[in-house]
Amino acid sequence: MISQAAVYRGDKTFSLEQKNVQPPGPGEVQIKVAYCGICGTDLHIFLGHMDKRVGFERTIGHEMSGTISATGEGVTGLSTGQRIVVRPLDHCGDCPACNAGHEHICHNLKFIGIDSEGAFQEYWNVPAHTIHVLPEGLDLSHAALIEPLAVACHDVERAKLVKDEDVLVIGGGPIGLLVALVARQAGGNVVISEISETRLAYAAKLGFKTINPKTEDPVERVNALTGNKGADVVFEVSGSQPGVDLMTAAAATRGRIVMVAIHASKPTIDLFQFFWRELELFGARVYRPEDYDTAMRLLNEGVVDCASFITDIKPLGEIQTAFTALTQNPSAIKSMIQIAKD
Amino acid sequence: MISQAAVYRGDKTFSLEQKNVQPPGPGEVQIKVAYCGICGTDLHIFLGHMDKRVGFERTIGHEMSGTISATGEGVTGLSTGQRIVVRPLDHCGDCPACNAGHEHICHNLKFIGIDSEGAFQEYWNVPAHTIHVLPEGLDLSHAALIEPLAVACHDVERAKLVKDEDVLVIGGGPIGLLVALVARQAGGNVVISEISETRLAYAAKLGFKTINPKTEDPVERVNALTGNKGADVVFEVSGSQPGVDLMTAAAATRGRIVMVAIHASKPTIDLFQFFWRELELFGARVYRPEDYDTAMRLLNEGVVDCASFITDIKPLGEIQTAFTALTQNPSAIKSMIQIAKD
Repeated sequence: MISQAAVYRGDKTFSLEQKNVQPPGPGEVQIKVAYCGICGTDLHIFLGHMDKRVGFERTIGHEMSGTISATGEGVTGLSTGQRIVVRPLDHCGDCPACNAGHEHICHNLKFIGIDSEGAFQEYWNVPAHTIHVLPEGLDLSHAALIEPLAVACHDVERAKLVKDEDVLVIGGGPIGLLVALVARQAGGNVVISEISETRLAYAAKLGFKTINPKTEDPVERVNALTGNKGADVVFEVSGSQPGVDLMTAAAATRGRIVMVAIHASKPTIDLFQFFWRELELFGARVYRPEDYDTAMRLLNEGVVDCASFITDIKPLGEIQTAFTALTQNPSAIKSMIQIAKD
Repeated sequence: MISQAAVYRGDKTFSLEQKNVQPPGPGEVQIKVAYCGICGTDLHIFLGHMDKRVGFERTIGHEMSGTISATGEGVTGLSTGQRIVVRPLDHCGDCPACNAGHEHICHNLKFIGIDSEGAFQEYWNVPAHTIHVLPEGLDLSHAALIEPLAVACHDVERAKLVKDEDVLVIGGGPIGLLVALVARQAGGNVVISEISETRLAYAAKLGFKTINPKTEDPVERVNALTGNKGADVVFEVSGSQPGVDLMTAAAATRGRIVMVAIHASKPTIDLFQFFWRELELFGARVYRPEDYDTAMRLLNEGVVDCASFITDIKPLGEIQTAFTALTQNPSAIKSMIQIAKD
């Protein structure tokens, strides 16, 4: 059997190639991939920022949904035809993080679809322990949002957010919006700070209060919204120096800040405010299995308006066009690739 | 009755003045001050760094011990002759921090001895709610260490330190040493990083492992001491850019960093490590009443070797000499002023 796969060849180029379908190995499950969203990290790879890590022979992609097409030796509790998503983390089981029960931040973590083969292909073999079986009736294109939604669930869990707390989300891209939706579902009073008018308009359409720090003072606005208390919880999703400045300035005394963004360079930070107001900062990376369970439940309950959240869906044959379009239109929310034909 | 008081007059100058002793007002207690240690903040005031906040008519000092000499109207449960220490915080009771039960970081907090009159004087009136009565038999010079020890107790409490955790203290000055002592008492395996050979020698004398980052790689050393795990808890007490660099580099995955130092300028910070290893950062400022209780208990149990920790004791009449000496000899641990004659 032949499987079509997109292979990243460097220099903003995917090649579409025919591969012999490999049977799943022991402990593996073979997936017929249905949909796979384009993550910000995929875009970084496309733009050549991660060539050293990824190389030029990799099929990437991890925000996926699909159907089990075969199970390997020793796999129990899973069967052909089950509709599933993959939690694309492979941990070592024998490092200080794994030993402490933090497998999702394993020191030797392999991120499947970055460090090993991913989901922009028709048939994909993954370790059985990464599989989550979908609830009945969930649309497979919607289910491809579970991976980024699980990121948001993990972020909100790290914040220990409780009902009626004031929440500031800095950055209204796909992850920021999902964090805002999960935080609102958890009872938070959420305001989103974002500089793109397109994204601000979408956030407003979802019913969020919004701040454009280009046109108003975001700290004054947060104080006005919170009776001069500040935000109990701040999610820094912008990855920018102004975002880091805002997170300490807008947080309440004893406010909890969650570091969602990947800061590739080292920003300056107002550590005095950490001392003075006993601020707290929590790093958050990927997800635990429970976050996937929560994400599937929330998606099934309609917390995400999938119809508007998914900006466009293109077939695998147009993956090159889809990635190129995203580099030119950063206001898209979620672009998705359909792999299997309906 | 006449009371002698040291008054900060600016430009590294105290004047010794005679004041009429004021009776305690309603809700106040009059203290006959016994000893008052010189805090790093007092030294900053002496050096002119806080003139705008303090002015030139203030008697400073807050690391004190003494005896109640009179009680004002409406004061109950306290009586003349009781040996006490003062928790020098006066909160407003009506701000977001107070409303949330965080009176010690009240938005309008008055630090007694900085924002109002302090303890470098023979008779001192303070609000009754600031008083902690000492256990029997505690030496009053030792008791003057309770205030900085309470800072350390608060820092360790903020870290949620549990037995057998690996602890790195960055900065081996008076507060760093007290943090190390309290952390060790809580069951931590403590190593102290410090660049002063004098302080390193004192830390070693107290039985601590030490690192001099000027002569060895502190991250390598912490990794070697912790089986390449890193420190479960890091206390940043140095207030320096190298300290901020070390705190993220030496922390274990999910490590908790406590920000004890006052960073007057904004350092750069490796926020990527917060994301990647889900680090946590907790600001810590002054103390709650419970931290005073813990500090009194620990001091009474002999956790601090007061005889060696108190470098020197000078009479109030020599306060100018004592402060000047400290600016020239930063390796002293704790210099103290004796106010009342024995």
